[in-house]
Amino acid sequence: MGTGKRTLPTRTGAHRIVISVDAMGGDRGPAVVLDGCAKSAAKNPNIGFILHGKHDELEPLVARRKPLADRCEIRDVSGIVTMDMKPGHVMRQGKDTSMWQAIDAVRAGEAEACVSCGNTGALMLLSVVRLRKLEGVNRPAIACLWPSRNPGGFNMMLDVGADIRADEQDLLQYAMMGASYARNGLGVENPRIGLLNNGTEEHKGRAELKVANEMLANAAELGAYRYVGFVEGGDIPSDRVDVIVTDGFTGNIALKTGEGTATLIRDFLGEAFKATPLSRIAALLAMTSLSRLSKRIDPRRVNGGVFLGLNGTVVKSHGAADATGVSAAIKLAFKLAESKFNERLAARLASVAVPGNDAASREADSGNQE
Amino acid sequence: MGTGKRTLPTRTGAHRIVISVDAMGGDRGPAVVLDGCAKSAAKNPNIGFILHGKHDELEPLVARRKPLADRCEIRDVSGIVTMDMKPGHVMRQGKDTSMWQAIDAVRAGEAEACVSCGNTGALMLLSVVRLRKLEGVNRPAIACLWPSRNPGGFNMMLDVGADIRADEQDLLQYAMMGASYARNGLGVENPRIGLLNNGTEEHKGRAELKVANEMLANAAELGAYRYVGFVEGGDIPSDRVDVIVTDGFTGNIALKTGEGTATLIRDFLGEAFKATPLSRIAALLAMTSLSRLSKRIDPRRVNGGVFLGLNGTVVKSHGAADATGVSAAIKLAFKLAESKFNERLAARLASVAVPGNDAASREADSGNQE
Repeated sequence: MGTGKRTLPTRTGAHRIVISVDAMGGDRGPAVVLDGCAKSAAKNPNIGFILHGKHDELEPLVARRKPLADRCEIRDVSGIVTMDMKPGHVMRQGKDTSMWQAIDAVRAGEAEACVSCGNTGALMLLSVVRLRKLEGVNRPAIACLWPSRNPGGFNMMLDVGADIRADEQDLLQYAMMGASYARNGLGVENPRIGLLNNGTEEHKGRAELKVANEMLANAAELGAYRYVGFVEGGDIPSDRVDVIVTDGFTGNIALKTGEGTATLIRDFLGEAFKATPLSRIAALLAMTSLSRLSKRIDPRRVNGGVFLGLNGTVVKSHGAADATGVSAAIKLAFKLAESKFNERLAARLASVAVPGNDAASREADSGNQE
Repeated sequence: MGTGKRTLPTRTGAHRIVISVDAMGGDRGPAVVLDGCAKSAAKNPNIGFILHGKHDELEPLVARRKPLADRCEIRDVSGIVTMDMKPGHVMRQGKDTSMWQAIDAVRAGEAEACVSCGNTGALMLLSVVRLRKLEGVNRPAIACLWPSRNPGGFNMMLDVGADIRADEQDLLQYAMMGASYARNGLGVENPRIGLLNNGTEEHKGRAELKVANEMLANAAELGAYRYVGFVEGGDIPSDRVDVIVTDGFTGNIALKTGEGTATLIRDFLGEAFKATPLSRIAALLAMTSLSRLSKRIDPRRVNGGVFLGLNGTVVKSHGAADATGVSAAIKLAFKLAESKFNERLAARLASVAVPGNDAASREADSGNQE
C-alpha cells in the first residue's frame, strides 16, 4: 500500500482543504465517486483530495476529469470493504483497504475530513478505533439531515444508527454535539433542540427520557441551544425544532420510515401521472412544478451522515449515491472542516465535563470565532 | 345516565350488527360523528348504532339525518372526556361520560364493537379496565393500517402506542394478534409478518429482538402466518410484508414520522403547483391524477386504530376525523364484528397457551369459517 504516493499540489497563497476519499466504496464503483469529486472541485477552488483505491483503476479516471487535474493524490491500496462484510472482520483484516486508509489519512493529519460511500457498520467501527472518541464522549453518534419546513430547508437528527441504545447521559451529549453541528454545518446560530418521544406531555416515555428531559433543559445555556422539550415523530420535518435527539435504534427506524414513505409517495405520484393520456399531458405541463418539489425532497441533497464525537470528521455518503450525492457529502465534509467544527466540538464537550467553565464554552463553537 | 334509553329497532329477518358510538368524542363535535354514522348507515343496511351523549344535543342531529332513522338508540349521558384529561382522572371520575358508557355497552353485550374519536390514552385505559384483557394476553396493543404497495393497498403495524415497552413474549403475542386481524380485517389469508429492527441481519438489534426473532419464526405454523424475519423502517409501506410487529414506543414514532413526512410532501406539492401561473394551469389539468394520488395516501381511508387483546372490539378514530374518517372507522368496526374477529382471536391465543393444540388453532380464525 502507498506505493503510488505523490506529493499533493497546492496553489500559492490559497489554503486548500484536503478531503480523504474512499474511492472504492459504494454500490456504483469508483467512476461515480470520482464524478462527485470532480463536481465539487469544479465549484470549489479551495478543495483538494487524497483518493484511496487501486492506482491503475483510478489514474485513468482522474485523467479524464479535468477539474481533478493537480487537485488530487492517488494512494494505491488493493483491498476493498464490500457492503456485506462484517465490521469485526474488516477490523481484523482490513488494514490494506481503501476505507481504512481513507480514515488513517485523517488520523495522520494529512486530510481534514474523510468521505466514504461504503459499508456503514465497518466505517463506524474503523472510525471509532482509528480516530478514537473525543474526550468525554461515551457513545459517538451519526447525524443526518432531514427536509423540513425551516427556512434553511433541513432539520438534523441524531443518533440515526451508530449505537442501538443511549442512556440519559448519552442523550445529553447528543444534544451538545447536535447543537454544535447545527451551528457549524447548518449555520443555525442558536439551534432549537427537541427530544424524540411518543408524546409531548412530560409524563410520557421511557424512564431515561424523563431524566434526559430535565438534563437537556438544564444544559441549554451551557450548550448554547434552546430546548423545546419532547417532540413527536410528526415534528421531525417541522419548523418547531432544528435538532432532534434520540437513540440510534429509534433514529434509524424513523429515518428509514421517512425515506420509505417519501419514496412510496414519489412512486405513486409517478403512477398517477402515467395513468391516462390526459394525465400524461398534465405531467408535461406540471414538469417545472414537479421538479421544484422533487428538488425540495431530493434525498441526494441531504446525502451525508456525519459521525460525531470522534477525533476527526467522517462523512458517510449513501451507498447508492450518484455524482450529485457524492458531491453533496464532500461539500458537507468541506464545510465542517472549514469551520473547524471538530475542534470547536472538542472544546464544547470539554467545557461540559468541567461545570463552571461555561463562559469559555459559549465561545467554543460560535460561528463567528475562528 | 341512561334516562333517554329506548328500545333498538330491528328489521325482521336481518341480523343487524350494533356499533356503540362515543358521539361526543373528537375535535369536531357530535355533528361530524353523526355525519360519519349516517354515511355508514346509508351504505350498509345491516348496521345499527347506540349513540352515547347529550340527548338534547343528539336528538335533533339524528332527526336531520335520514339514513339514521330507526337505526339508532340515543343514550343520554352528561359527561365528556376532553382531549387533555389525564387517563387516570377519567378512570376515577369518568363513569358518567359518553366514552365510558360507549365501552360499557360492549361489555354488557348490547353492542358488538365500540368506536370513539376521543382521547386515546383514556380510551385505552378505560377499555382495558372495563373490558379486561383476553386470557393469556400480557400487553394489549393498538394496530393501525398503513398505505402500502400491496394489492390490498394497506399494511398493518402493531403496537403503535398502547404500551411503551414490549418483551419477546409480548412481541410474539402481537404477531398472533396481528395475523388474526390481517385475516379477518384485511382478508389476507396467510399474512406475512416482519419484526421491525434497525437492520435485517440476524445479529442486529436489541437483545429481546434477537430472541423474538426466533420465537416468531417457530410460532409461524401455530399462528398461521409466514414469518419474513427482520424488516426495516423502509419496509413498512412495502410489499415484502403484511404485518409489522414492534413495541409501542417505536411504532408510535414510526407512525407519526410517516404521517409527518406524507403531510410535508403534500404541502410542498401544493406549494409547487401554486408557484407560477403556468403551474396553476398544470395543476388544473393534473387534478384527476392528483386526486387519484391523494386518494391512495388519504389518511382518512386508513382511519381507525384497533385495540387488540381485549374482551371486545374498540376502534379508535383520529380525533380530527371528518365524516369520511369516522365512517371508515365504523366500517372497520363492523367488519371485525361481522367476522367474529374477537372470538377467533381468543381461540387462537388460547391455543398458543396450550402447545400441541395447533390443529384447533389453525381453524380458529380462518376467514372461511363461521
